[in-house]
Amino acid sequence: MVNRLSADERKAALKELPGWSEAKGRDAIARVFTFKDFSEAFGFMARVALVAEKHDHHPEWRNVYKTVDVVLSTHDADGVTQKDIDLAKAMDAIAKQLGV
Amino acid sequence: MVNRLSADERKAALKELPGWSEAKGRDAIARVFTFKDFSEAFGFMARVALVAEKHDHHPEWRNVYKTVDVVLSTHDADGVTQKDIDLAKAMDAIAKQLGV
Repeated sequence: MVNRLSADERKAALKELPGWSEAKGRDAIARVFTFKDFSEAFGFMARVALVAEKHDHHPEWRNVYKTVDVVLSTHDADGVTQKDIDLAKAMDAIAKQLGV
Repeated sequence: MVNRLSADERKAALKELPGWSEAKGRDAIARVFTFKDFSEAFGFMARVALVAEKHDHHPEWRNVYKTVDVVLSTHDADGVTQKDIDLAKAMDAIAKQLGV
């Protein structure tokens, strides 16, 4: 069990995650990733899926062709935790390798 | 370019696709697939992604842990076409192999 970040902690963490923002109407963080095409978008998702499964912490995400719309929150904590920040960083790193 | 199915054609096609229904407020068809866990859900998505890429026709889909929420329509035709029916059938066949 991890603790929910306070509003200040969440704000500080988001400062280091350009592209991510507070999800509207929820205690969650969100980012839209846009790739070149479906193949790149799904390749990104496949790599993120391995990370998510390894850490047993999974994203909510929606894919339409070349875009991947991600929302992260921790169900058990009913809000954003360090687990979400870590997954956001891992997603950014994978996207960066794909030139995003 | 494929033609948009008429309301009657769409209705007839849906009769052969139990589990699928008309998407609310859109000319599209939808189904929610529920698997055992994330690994099975993402395994399903990976197999569907290969089919989608092969036929250059891609789903809109949202994954939250073990569920995959799918909406199919054909952008170029601004509605449901035979391509969507074919992709729906392929998804059902893959899900069936996974015991869904």
